[in-house]
Amino acid sequence: MSESMDMSRMCSIGLLTHDYYDDLDNFIVQAEGAGHDFVVTPISHPTLRRVLNEENTIDKESQENWKDRPVFDRKDLIIKSADQSARAIGLLANWIHLDSPDAEIRLCSELALKQEIDWACHISLTGLIFPSLPTGSLYNTARVINSAVRSMSFTQFLVRVPLTDKSNVQGNIPWKQWNRLRTLAEYNTKIHVALELTSELPTDEQLLDMWLAEPIKAVIVPAEIFVENSKGYPVLSKPHQRFIKKLMDKMKPDMIVTLPTTSIHKLATPSSYSEYITYLNRHLPELQDVDRFATGYQDFLQAPLQPLMDNLENQTYEVFEKDPIKYQQYEKAVYKALLDRVEHDSDYVTTIMVVGAGRGPLVNCCLRASEKSERKVHIYALEKNHNAFVTLQNAKADIWGDKVTLVFADMRKWNPPAKCDILVSELLGSFGDNELSPECLDGAQKFIKENGISIPASYTAFASPLASTRLNNNVAAYKDLVHYETPYVVMFQQVCELAAPKPLWEFSHPNKHVGSDGPINNLHNIRYSQVTFDVNHDMMMNGIAGYFESVLYKDVMISIHPKTHSPGMFSWFPIYFPIRTPVQVPQGSKVTLDFWRLTDEKKVWYEWTVSVHGKQGEEMTVLPIHNVHGRSYYVGL
Amino acid sequence: MSESMDMSRMCSIGLLTHDYYDDLDNFIVQAEGAGHDFVVTPISHPTLRRVLNEENTIDKESQENWKDRPVFDRKDLIIKSADQSARAIGLLANWIHLDSPDAEIRLCSELALKQEIDWACHISLTGLIFPSLPTGSLYNTARVINSAVRSMSFTQFLVRVPLTDKSNVQGNIPWKQWNRLRTLAEYNTKIHVALELTSELPTDEQLLDMWLAEPIKAVIVPAEIFVENSKGYPVLSKPHQRFIKKLMDKMKPDMIVTLPTTSIHKLATPSSYSEYITYLNRHLPELQDVDRFATGYQDFLQAPLQPLMDNLENQTYEVFEKDPIKYQQYEKAVYKALLDRVEHDSDYVTTIMVVGAGRGPLVNCCLRASEKSERKVHIYALEKNHNAFVTLQNAKADIWGDKVTLVFADMRKWNPPAKCDILVSELLGSFGDNELSPECLDGAQKFIKENGISIPASYTAFASPLASTRLNNNVAAYKDLVHYETPYVVMFQQVCELAAPKPLWEFSHPNKHVGSDGPINNLHNIRYSQVTFDVNHDMMMNGIAGYFESVLYKDVMISIHPKTHSPGMFSWFPIYFPIRTPVQVPQGSKVTLDFWRLTDEKKVWYEWTVSVHGKQGEEMTVLPIHNVHGRSYYVGL
Repeated sequence: MSESMDMSRMCSIGLLTHDYYDDLDNFIVQAEGAGHDFVVTPISHPTLRRVLNEENTIDKESQENWKDRPVFDRKDLIIKSADQSARAIGLLANWIHLDSPDAEIRLCSELALKQEIDWACHISLTGLIFPSLPTGSLYNTARVINSAVRSMSFTQFLVRVPLTDKSNVQGNIPWKQWNRLRTLAEYNTKIHVALELTSELPTDEQLLDMWLAEPIKAVIVPAEIFVENSKGYPVLSKPHQRFIKKLMDKMKPDMIVTLPTTSIHKLATPSSYSEYITYLNRHLPELQDVDRFATGYQDFLQAPLQPLMDNLENQTYEVFEKDPIKYQQYEKAVYKALLDRVEHDSDYVTTIMVVGAGRGPLVNCCLRASEKSERKVHIYALEKNHNAFVTLQNAKADIWGDKVTLVFADMRKWNPPAKCDILVSELLGSFGDNELSPECLDGAQKFIKENGISIPASYTAFASPLASTRLNNNVAAYKDLVHYETPYVVMFQQVCELAAPKPLWEFSHPNKHVGSDGPINNLHNIRYSQVTFDVNHDMMMNGIAGYFESVLYKDVMISIHPKTHSPGMFSWFPIYFPIRTPVQVPQGSKVTLDFWRLTDEKKVWYEWTVSVHGKQGEEMTVLPIHNVHGRSYYVGL
Repeated sequence: MSESMDMSRMCSIGLLTHDYYDDLDNFIVQAEGAGHDFVVTPISHPTLRRVLNEENTIDKESQENWKDRPVFDRKDLIIKSADQSARAIGLLANWIHLDSPDAEIRLCSELALKQEIDWACHISLTGLIFPSLPTGSLYNTARVINSAVRSMSFTQFLVRVPLTDKSNVQGNIPWKQWNRLRTLAEYNTKIHVALELTSELPTDEQLLDMWLAEPIKAVIVPAEIFVENSKGYPVLSKPHQRFIKKLMDKMKPDMIVTLPTTSIHKLATPSSYSEYITYLNRHLPELQDVDRFATGYQDFLQAPLQPLMDNLENQTYEVFEKDPIKYQQYEKAVYKALLDRVEHDSDYVTTIMVVGAGRGPLVNCCLRASEKSERKVHIYALEKNHNAFVTLQNAKADIWGDKVTLVFADMRKWNPPAKCDILVSELLGSFGDNELSPECLDGAQKFIKENGISIPASYTAFASPLASTRLNNNVAAYKDLVHYETPYVVMFQQVCELAAPKPLWEFSHPNKHVGSDGPINNLHNIRYSQVTFDVNHDMMMNGIAGYFESVLYKDVMISIHPKTHSPGMFSWFPIYFPIRTPVQVPQGSKVTLDFWRLTDEKKVWYEWTVSVHGKQGEEMTVLPIHNVHGRSYYVGL
């Protein structure tokens, strides 16, 4: 594995201490000397705890005065000045108990928390870490944090959440507390996670992967979870390494290490732990073509293409023609079809029509297949985009010559001079049929001879319930109904599927139900599917992931379904259907998706809804049907 | 019981037939002759069922043509002309099966349904009844209905729902199907219920009352559920009578009777059933003062008063002073306090301060109590509204004389010349403390002598989870966040509580924690309460009902809590806190309300949230905290 020197993938490394350093500057210098970019330290001394006044140590009036105007004594502070801010993240007081059954402790905790936050914001501290969520009720904690972060802009707020609970390594209890908090705080984008790794990791991969859907800003790696290698140096177990690398790769968090209070790894120096983390960071899996291609597009919401209504731009063609896999597969499909349909040495000239030829990549595929198979072909290249058609004319003049006839027409309206043996098209969207391939190919079907074939022969839409705080928030940021009812093309990154995708419906071509004059109406392209998913852990659902698989010809497939994805093919990102409210999915419950593909004279659209049923079949959640009659999103015919 | 002749309470009566009358005009004439205002009849003949083409009775092309343009043959129609529209409600075809497993039957059902709806709208039919919801999955039914009613404006759409399922009289299975439909249709205000009564009624009152929260437009009373009285006439059982009267009283539905196909009640004539329904309608419980006072205010959302920020208008005082009970109770409280505090025949002059005297009703209470108890009093009447103060001056000049000293001041700022024995105020809102009585009385507390008293002595806020389609829709109509996070004062009518109210918090006066100089800050008036309710049936929750109880003095109370409501007192309607999405509450689950009363220097506000937990404690729903930091609603200090 070559060492990746891509600095854009390097995480900052911090050193966390729970000690109270009166000379913080000195500690910062030492930490930097040992390879850390910043330190994590309590903001204030435990002396501030007196404000709880649990033992009536303060007189009533000064207690009341403090409540009215909570001001620090200079000697209470660890982070004393703005000079330290850029190199420090603050730990909020760990004695704060916002859900105490004692109303007075709740109140003083709230005031003290706000006092610390106020100070941190005043000195422009980089970040603040809330030390731990209560194990029981956390409604008041959620209310206070949600209210307190309103005033924070520069300083980031993180909640420390351990990966596992010692009492239950295979459950997701700390996540559940975090989930309660952020649900009560309505996915407040100012509240992040500082995920603390633990010695034990759950063996069920989904209990790790579900964290990829969370707003992790920092990962805490305590010295205690390191083990000693044979040489006496501290290292991490393979599962820890894998998980940390995944987090680095997908989320680029700040990495925070601690130093052990007593020496637990024989040959460890103060820089061993940060060096090991840096080592992992330098050995992330190499970026693939698709990753480079997608830089900046991860979890970004793109409106799906509507090539029937809009003409593509040259740049778009340029990008898609670079796909290393898609045209290989098309070539292979045409090649196999030619072998199947024509005897070797036959003089028969196979007529191929490429409908939607664009700038010609499929024409080239067909010509290569013809050459390789030693079958003669004549190709009609049909295109409705007058700009792309110029490029086709150049190719014909310069390269193709008589083998190719160019036709400037909309495939739904053209009358061909002859019928073809093979109709080749690339009209698929991320959901298969979402760019109206069914309607287009219904229209072009009359070009095909009896027993002629269509490449692709069929395509199937898949869907799965998806968790993603980032996608949830990207949609919510629009603050309107329309964006909650519009599907997006998205390069998934910080997401986690609740269950594996299932097929919704299929389209096959040529369609025997369409007559030789074309279809009278489009009702045969209506689809309705209901699929149910078993969910094994307590999770949240934020939306629906959509994919397609397509049979080009016999065993030649293209797929963006995660399990069968054509390796290296980047022409399609998945499609994402939002839902209007995040949905709680308790362990062992079933998520049901109802999905419709609908049509009227002028448009095609999807409607969808989600319901959740408990173990006993009880109805827990039913969402309203989304995008009623295409009110928010449709594709024009 | 006197016969109420209030015509505004009379329901229309219709006659339903499932027969297919070729001469509908004649049937209408007969029905009107027998005392019916309208008829309910199928729109079309069963012959239309051929469009399902289940036995391939139509050739493919005419089937395709019909699908493209669904047009009626004249002979398919029962309701043939617009002349019949005003006197008829149509029954949609009962063979329509929108959730058939057969896609072709689903499609043709949808087209036939839309064809019938189109015709009904074209002839401006009053209403349409969807004959019955499927017993299994109804997602496609919901999708089709929700989409089809978009184009309906004059014609009303009703879904026939039987009250009970024969297989399970004590469950609410038909309601559950209805609930699924309207949840999927997002409380579409164009979809109503035609509730069909059944012979068996559930004995659990809540299974009846939950229908009061539904958008019932019509009640169907089949002839078969009538019993014969001793004279041979058809009558209804007492429970049926009670339930029908309740529906008439709260919802004023259209009442629809059927005629029996064979004679089942010896002496019944064609008009017996409608006459009996009219008889029940004429014998509704008489309207109370409060009902007359509240006409037009039922389920209407009023913004709560903010008497501290705004001055009340004369008309508002006028209305509230008419309360027959409130001032009786205040008089009684002052009377008992005077008896307790002063010996008979004593010359001691009790100083009473009425803070917020308005136009003087409490001053009059005190004077009457003084007279009745034969205790001497001197009254300070404090008022900050300069307009009301004019009326006070008139009363002093004309009636009160030296017994009353008028003070034009804000009670939070006035310095009294002497302290009082009794401080009397009426600053309560529907939730007790929501008009800032605690803050006002903290300020006025320094007027009270050591061992002096406050009337009221204390007050408690109560809350319960509430179902109400009407309130849900009234809030939703505003289409913004602010209205979902604002409490309203509401005269409840079409509502159903999921469980009995529980107390949240209490305020007592004088407050020992407030010093003689008044409070330094307002933090002692912060409250937080978490209450949990067991819910016995599958229900929906749309919001939170709020009430108060107040101890004026010892056993003298005023209350708007439904269980302890001061009879006839109309000064306060309940308060209603909306929630941002309706919440599914499965049978046997627990609803938890978290409620906060919060304060800063300038304002007081509430925050609230709802969570639902299943039988095993699993978290089914957690709503975001509402009204974060008073962003949508607060009361100014």
